[in-house]
Amino acid sequence: MQPKYIFSNVIGTFVFSEQFTIFDKILFSSIEDYENREKAENNFKNKYKSPKKPEGKELFKILDFFKNRQFFSGFYSKNLALTKKKVKGAVKDDILIIQSINCIEDTDKIINMLVKRLREWYSYYNPEFSSSVGDNEKFIELLIGKKDKKSEDSMGADLSRENLEPITELIEQANGLYALRKKQENYLEKLMKNNCPNLTAIAGVTIGAKLIEHANSLKHLAELPSSVIQLLGAEKALFRHLKTGARSPKYGILHEHPLISKAKKPEHGKIARALADKISIAVRVDYFKGKFIGDKLKKALEERFK
Amino acid sequence: MQPKYIFSNVIGTFVFSEQFTIFDKILFSSIEDYENREKAENNFKNKYKSPKKPEGKELFKILDFFKNRQFFSGFYSKNLALTKKKVKGAVKDDILIIQSINCIEDTDKIINMLVKRLREWYSYYNPEFSSSVGDNEKFIELLIGKKDKKSEDSMGADLSRENLEPITELIEQANGLYALRKKQENYLEKLMKNNCPNLTAIAGVTIGAKLIEHANSLKHLAELPSSVIQLLGAEKALFRHLKTGARSPKYGILHEHPLISKAKKPEHGKIARALADKISIAVRVDYFKGKFIGDKLKKALEERFK
Repeated sequence: MQPKYIFSNVIGTFVFSEQFTIFDKILFSSIEDYENREKAENNFKNKYKSPKKPEGKELFKILDFFKNRQFFSGFYSKNLALTKKKVKGAVKDDILIIQSINCIEDTDKIINMLVKRLREWYSYYNPEFSSSVGDNEKFIELLIGKKDKKSEDSMGADLSRENLEPITELIEQANGLYALRKKQENYLEKLMKNNCPNLTAIAGVTIGAKLIEHANSLKHLAELPSSVIQLLGAEKALFRHLKTGARSPKYGILHEHPLISKAKKPEHGKIARALADKISIAVRVDYFKGKFIGDKLKKALEERFK
Repeated sequence: MQPKYIFSNVIGTFVFSEQFTIFDKILFSSIEDYENREKAENNFKNKYKSPKKPEGKELFKILDFFKNRQFFSGFYSKNLALTKKKVKGAVKDDILIIQSINCIEDTDKIINMLVKRLREWYSYYNPEFSSSVGDNEKFIELLIGKKDKKSEDSMGADLSRENLEPITELIEQANGLYALRKKQENYLEKLMKNNCPNLTAIAGVTIGAKLIEHANSLKHLAELPSSVIQLLGAEKALFRHLKTGARSPKYGILHEHPLISKAKKPEHGKIARALADKISIAVRVDYFKGKFIGDKLKKALEERFK
């Protein structure tokens, strides 16, 4: 019986004889031991003159050996711990970015719903003021500041204090939601600037985050060709184009970008293509933790389309 | 020229001669004067021995007289003031009830949206806790009380304080919305008990308010036959029944009523019919400001179906 093969799994590092019986072993007590298994392996390599790693049929023989029931509970608990650890480590900043941008979009929907209801209710009290302020955020701001003077000849009903109270509470809640939205925006901005400064510089916080959300991760976004980035968010129009031959979309999420929204219609497609190009470069630099070149990319674009 | 006809409109009270020319007049300075026009009319009736009200052709002659342009601005401003006043007076308590129940339903939707988002986000931090508490309200309550202990071997990521902050803010917002919902419920309960004590006693606050909302007003609800009340809220199923011959619905909004939800399935239709009967009586008593008989109606029902 000579030590011949060395083999490691989550349970430990083993040295096998030529007859595939265990010759020596070091059992791992924790996942950290498994992750530093080279130490145990080097230990054996010094002890026995360099046992070789099993290959082909030898490997099958050794794997067969571990099919024994006695190892099952060891595999189970170690694998579970390993999985937990991997899951724990899987929460990267781009997951937080995705949560954050989704939450901002939800908050927008919620605010719209709430302010719509509020306006309807408030209009029984002071319809003239409600219709004089079109912007929802401004509307809430003025209400919070009690700048909603009711004119003498208003058509609104004279609601008692008791009946005004639920309206006031609705106003406060809406105001709280606007504050929440602002905080979320700040948080997202910080996240984006830390994780993808180049993408943020060229696409802006919101569009950048939406791109990551659509691609599911920064990694996947970095792998996409710029032509796909150009059309992210326009999937419906793209498939309609492919299916029915309708006109192909020129951009998806990118249509909100100031370079495009400010330009004339015939230029849109060209700008979107160039923008997607630069974004795709920026994302790759970000993913591989390269230098900051966002300002240069942005300047080049702006000069081309000014 | 003898005073013969007396005629009032929003501009004033006029006495006409037999030749349909103005003999005497009192102009109204405000809408209140118009509403108390009897005073002016009595004044004239005493002054001239009882001028008669114009009828048929006489009335046409007089109305013709007012077609003159000189009266237009008078009519315009007075009618506008009158309309404004009517609009102002049109905000009755049942409009507030409808707003309030709609707002509660919106708030429920909003809370669901927000908590769903929160759970997804929070699960990156402490998934075990999130899945151990099924009820959303309870979940928020425990989080606010910081009773979300994270176990040592949690799969959740170790988020930095900075990354936990937006989650905490979301929790606070959700808590605020639950508080808002409770206040709205209290307000609605007060409104309902003041305006339709009988309906509230027999149907409960929420179902009662939903019935009023579906009928658009307490008045209209009082006019509906009990068979319609039974099916309010089941319009879709009813029309499917009429169109395709599918089974007819047994109840709409009423299906949430404890008497129905606690009973066995085969009894449901019978109970819904009896409940709608009693509700229709209660609503009519409420609308005509009758005595409180809600407890008796409720008792009769409960005894029949206990």
